[in-house]
Parts: sequence; C-alpha cells; structure tokens
Amino acid sequence: MALVKPDGYYPLTESSALELAKTLGFFDEYEELFCSEIGDGNLNYVFRIGTKLYEKSIIIKQALPYAKVVGESMPLTLKRAEIESSALTKFREFTPDSVPKIFYTDTELAVTVMEDLSDYKILRKALIDGQEFPLLPVHIGTYLARTLFFTSDFGLNGRDKKELVGRFINPELCKITEDLVFTDPFYDHDSNDFEEELREKVEALWDDNIVRLEAGKLKRKFLTQADSLLHGDLHTGSIFVKQDDTKIIDPEFAFYGPIGFDVGQFIANILLNSLSRPKEDHPGRLKIISDTWNVFSSEFTNLWLEHNQETYSTTAGYLDHILGEIFEDTIGFAGCEIIRRTIGLSHVADLDGISDKNRRVKAKTDAIDLGRRLILQRKIIKNPGQLALY
Amino acid sequence: MALVKPDGYYPLTESSALELAKTLGFFDEYEELFCSEIGDGNLNYVFRIGTKLYEKSIIIKQALPYAKVVGESMPLTLKRAEIESSALTKFREFTPDSVPKIFYTDTELAVTVMEDLSDYKILRKALIDGQEFPLLPVHIGTYLARTLFFTSDFGLNGRDKKELVGRFINPELCKITEDLVFTDPFYDHDSNDFEEELREKVEALWDDNIVRLEAGKLKRKFLTQADSLLHGDLHTGSIFVKQDDTKIIDPEFAFYGPIGFDVGQFIANILLNSLSRPKEDHPGRLKIISDTWNVFSSEFTNLWLEHNQETYSTTAGYLDHILGEIFEDTIGFAGCEIIRRTIGLSHVADLDGISDKNRRVKAKTDAIDLGRRLILQRKIIKNPGQLALY
Repeated sequence: MALVKPDGYYPLTESSALELAKTLGFFDEYEELFCSEIGDGNLNYVFRIGTKLYEKSIIIKQALPYAKVVGESMPLTLKRAEIESSALTKFREFTPDSVPKIFYTDTELAVTVMEDLSDYKILRKALIDGQEFPLLPVHIGTYLARTLFFTSDFGLNGRDKKELVGRFINPELCKITEDLVFTDPFYDHDSNDFEEELREKVEALWDDNIVRLEAGKLKRKFLTQADSLLHGDLHTGSIFVKQDDTKIIDPEFAFYGPIGFDVGQFIANILLNSLSRPKEDHPGRLKIISDTWNVFSSEFTNLWLEHNQETYSTTAGYLDHILGEIFEDTIGFAGCEIIRRTIGLSHVADLDGISDKNRRVKAKTDAIDLGRRLILQRKIIKNPGQLALY
Repeated sequence: MALVKPDGYYPLTESSALELAKTLGFFDEYEELFCSEIGDGNLNYVFRIGTKLYEKSIIIKQALPYAKVVGESMPLTLKRAEIESSALTKFREFTPDSVPKIFYTDTELAVTVMEDLSDYKILRKALIDGQEFPLLPVHIGTYLARTLFFTSDFGLNGRDKKELVGRFINPELCKITEDLVFTDPFYDHDSNDFEEELREKVEALWDDNIVRLEAGKLKRKFLTQADSLLHGDLHTGSIFVKQDDTKIIDPEFAFYGPIGFDVGQFIANILLNSLSRPKEDHPGRLKIISDTWNVFSSEFTNLWLEHNQETYSTTAGYLDHILGEIFEDTIGFAGCEIIRRTIGLSHVADLDGISDKNRRVKAKTDAIDLGRRLILQRKIIKNPGQLALY
C-alpha cells in the first residue's frame, strides 16, 4: 500500500505544533509557551503544549502516515485520526467523564487537539509499579457498559446504528488485529516474537488443531459480529489513571464488533499483569476483573431495563442469554489477547520487563497455558470468580 | 419520515418511459414501440418496452418514493433502486447467468434498465400451478453458494468486504424485515393479518415465551451478523423460471447479513407451497429443498477448498462448523418466514389462494406449527432430509 496523504498534510514539529496551537487561539499571542513531543513516535506524534508552569496546557496529537513496526515502516491510513476523534466524541455522549475532551479536529492534518492528561499515569505502568486504584473497576465497568449498550441495537434505533456502522468502517486498523491478535500467533508466522525457551510450548500450541479451530471461530466473530462501537484496543496502555479518575484514550481501532472484545482485552491485560507478579498479588488482580465484570453486567442490566429499544428485551431469559454470550466471548477474546501479547508481535512490559530470565520464561509459559485454556474452556467458565482456578 | 426525492425525480408514465428508452438509444428513433406497465405498482413501476412483436425488448424499473401497504402509503427511500442495481451487478460477477443483465442505471430517476424476462414465469405462480423445474435446485443452490461465499470473509479480502458492507447499508429495507419478519408476528401487533379461525393458535404462539426468546435471538443475528451480501428477500416471488433457466430478481433488500437468511427464505417459501398442496406432492417439494441444500453445500465446499482467503480455512473441522451454523440458521430463519407469511402483514398466494376455507385454515394451522417447530428445533435438525418428519 502506498502512503496516502492529503495535500495539506505535513508532519508537525515542536515549533510548528506550537504555532498551530497559537493560530487556533488556544493561547494568548504573547504567552510564553513550551512544547515537547511526548509520544512514542511509532504511530503518532503527541505534542504537549502549555504555559510556563503548565497552568494551562493542551495535547496536539497527529497521526503519522506509517507505523514503525520492528524497525520497518508500514503505511497506515491517516483516516484513523478522524476515527479516533469521532469515537471519543461518540463515547463522550454516554460517559463524558471517561474520555479526554476534544477541542479541535483537522482531518487534513490528521490532528486532534485534546485535554492534557499529563497528571495521569498509564495504567499498565502503574500496575507494574504495584499501585492500586480502587475506583478502576467502577470506572471501566461503567464505561464499557454505557458505550457498548448505547451503540448497540439495544440502545440505539436501527437507522442510527447502521449509520454508525458505516461511519466506523476501519479496514486498516481491523486488519492489524485480525492478523496480529487472531491469526499470526496461532501459526508459525514471521511476525511472531518469543524467546527460544518457549519454542517447545509454542510449537505445541501450533500443533493443537482444537485451539486453532476455536481461535478461528473467535476471529470470525471479530470479523462479522457488528454488535457495538468498540474501542478496539482496550489494553492497559490505553487507560490513564489517577486515584480518583480514569480516562480511556486512543480509540483509533474503533469499529463495530462483538461486545466481548473490549471487555476481553481489558481482562487479558490485567491477567498478564497478574502473571508478572508474585502469587500473593494474584487475588487483588483477579478482584479487579471480578469487580469490573460485576459493575459492567449490573450497569448493562440497568441500561437494558431502562433504555432498551428492542421489543424482545422484555422476553424472559433474553438478557441472561446476552450477558452469557458476552461473557463467553470475553473469556475467549482474552485468551487470544494473552497469547498474542506473549508470543506475537506486540508484547507487554508486564511480562517483558521481568528481569530474571527464569521467572520471565515461567510467567510467559503460564501465559500461554492460560490463554489456551481460556480459548478452549470459554463455554464452561461461567463467572469471573472461576478464573481463580485457572 | 417525509418523502425524500432528488430534484430530478419524476414518476414515469408509459409514454415518458418509452421516450426515455429512445433517448437512451435502446431503440432506433423511428422504430414502432410498445410500452406497458406490468408491475404490481406497490413499490415500483415496471415498464416493458419493445418493438412490435417484442423481438427486441427491455424493462425499465423505477422505484416509487413510497410503498403501498394495506391501502396506506409509507415513504420509502429511492436509494433502494441503487442498492438493487448494485447488488445485481455484484452478483453477476459470481454467477452471471443467474441474474438479469443491467443495461443502465440512473440514481436520480431511481431507474434501472434491464433485460426483459417476460418469457419467464414467477416461480411462486409456477409452483402453485404444479409445474416442475428439475434444474431449479442446481440453479438456486449454485447462486446461493457463489454469491454468499464470494462476498464473505472467506471469499473476499477484508478491505473489499468492509467496503461492500458500507456500500450496502440499507436501513429502511432492513427495518421492514426486522419488523415484519422478526417482530410483529410474534406479538399482538396491528400489522398482523390472519383469519379469525387461527386466533387461538396465534394467541398460543404469542404466549409461548420460548418461541419468543428464540425468535429474538434469530432477529439479533439478522441485526448483527455481517457474513455476506444477501439478496435479502429471496422468496419464490423473487425468482423467475423457465424449464432450462432460473433468474433471481429484485434484490432491493440487499445488505450484509447472516448467510442462512437467504437460504432460509427460499426453503420457507418452498415449504409454504408444500403445505398448500396434497400430501402426495410433499416429497417432491421436500426434494427441491434437499437438492438445493446439497448443491449449495457442495458448491460452497468446492469454493472453500479452491478460493478461500481465510488462513483458518484449512483447519480441520472449520468448514463443518460453518456449514452446521448456516444450516441451523437456515432452519430458524425459515421458521420465522413461514410464520410471518401465515399471520403477518405480507402473505403468500400459495396459502391465501386455497379456495376451500377448511383446507386453507388447516394449511395455515400446519404452517404455524411447522414454523414454530423449526424455530425451536433448529439445533437438532441436522439435515434437510429430517424435514420430512416435520
């Protein structure tokens, strides 16, 4: 695929980002400003621009027309900036406190100006540091229930839902997930990345036709089941936290997919963190998962009872069926995500950051086992409490 | 909803349709032509225009900005003409002999000029007349397999599939199916239409919470499962036949939905015809269904083996899983269609045309029973041969 850039597109620098912020009127002309690029530079530039002591500051995020993946550059649509900003705007309708404020969008420059959340920490890092966030399950469970309910056929009329399905068709970013989460890790593919000590385990996984069949079924759900507008990449690196607040960022993978995918990615990344920690920390991590699921399902139930637009919603047994299906999918998708983050292209610092090699290989071995069991046993795990057995 | 008409739209008359055909160069300027409106006028005008002895003829089909439903006019998007003509064009790519040729499309006038099939009969009428078409199952089974395979994630790459999903978003026409097939007949809704003798039976259906739950699940599949580009209205009135040929027409309901829906609607309408006939004709009708399914699944299997783009397609058990799911959905959707055509808004001549009242009520009672059993037992009916027991 060739690079596709609108005529007016140019990559910002710290100084041109600062000029843009002034031109757009976010600061007084004569205010002394600072600008620094704080992104990881793989997919996007992230400029933080503020007054001297950052009493007042904004973020200018710009999509780059490529992704740097293991040293190589892969062309990547700039349209994702528009998708991300549209998704944040849509999610804000249902859960205004869970996503950053958007101040300005320029689709030609692939630029979004948004709230500066520099006083928040990335959840992944905070969990690695052993921090605790008692309100996290309430915030995430509520965010999931509200965004996933209100964009589904249960919370939205058919015309508006179908309009959103069309607006959030997102082939390039979905393709990344289709390949890197659902396909490559289950095959001997070049993109995979794992330590040699895991090879025997990994080859056993590739030889397991039943795992492959079930992963294939889960991939098909991802490809075809247009339930709700998903975040699409809800790992712990897409979540900003502080003690009393949680913000979900970076929904550039947003598209209409199966509800359990967002829930499953979150749960998977908590499980990955758990695997990286000493045994005594596991119950605390599992509690994040149980609490998040319980908040999600109870909030989803409330919305179902109060705001449902589907005639069948009052049918006895229907809500239970839907929640059961979401939970089963959640567990299966979590299994795929755990395997992908362990042996696929894009790892997590939780596991890769374990400095002791034996401990790291052990944790990754456990991750492969866990991922595999979740995929295979998703129909018999009936509640998050049972994950303690896994 | 208000009527939405492009500025250049005007309803054609026989004379303006004839002028249009000349202007577009389909006939010589001085050729003596005939034009007659042959549609039922509910949703579209259908003008047949030809030379004196119809040695040369075309059809001009024009969508009307409303639907006449039980005497009332309901506004209906003209965009359906574009959907229909795009769907026919897309289906032609995979099965050129199964759909009429398209000569010209004008989205502003909501007009499609196409092949004249006046030497064909509508399948519904032919079946009512007791005619037989030995090649019908081969033609329909092949059409279904090819259109449904090649527009799915198995036969198409992800980018092109998602582009088609967006192009065929069809809220108004889907809404008709969502309401009239999947909802209203299972509730005491004004749109329902049945003879008073059926009331007890119908009320028992409405009181059956299990039927309702399962119909709700099938509706959800219709709403969310974007497998393939469906015809979307594949009853026996959308099929033209002669002894050696079969043409599928009228895909204005086309959208991305579950594969089993097209297959199920076809099967349902053959079953409805069967119910209208004496017992000795049933095996022949059931054979149409078995043969169609067998051709469909064998052609689908061939395409799967030869043209599959999905990495997982070679996984042992995956094809069986997919065919099993399609068959289960087919049976369930057929059940909904049978009930809808018996007690819902839009009936079929097969049943309504039975002049003897007792026989008619008996056939309709059997239809309600059959539809209900198909919905409830779709997971245990494993092949079309078993339909003989129902």
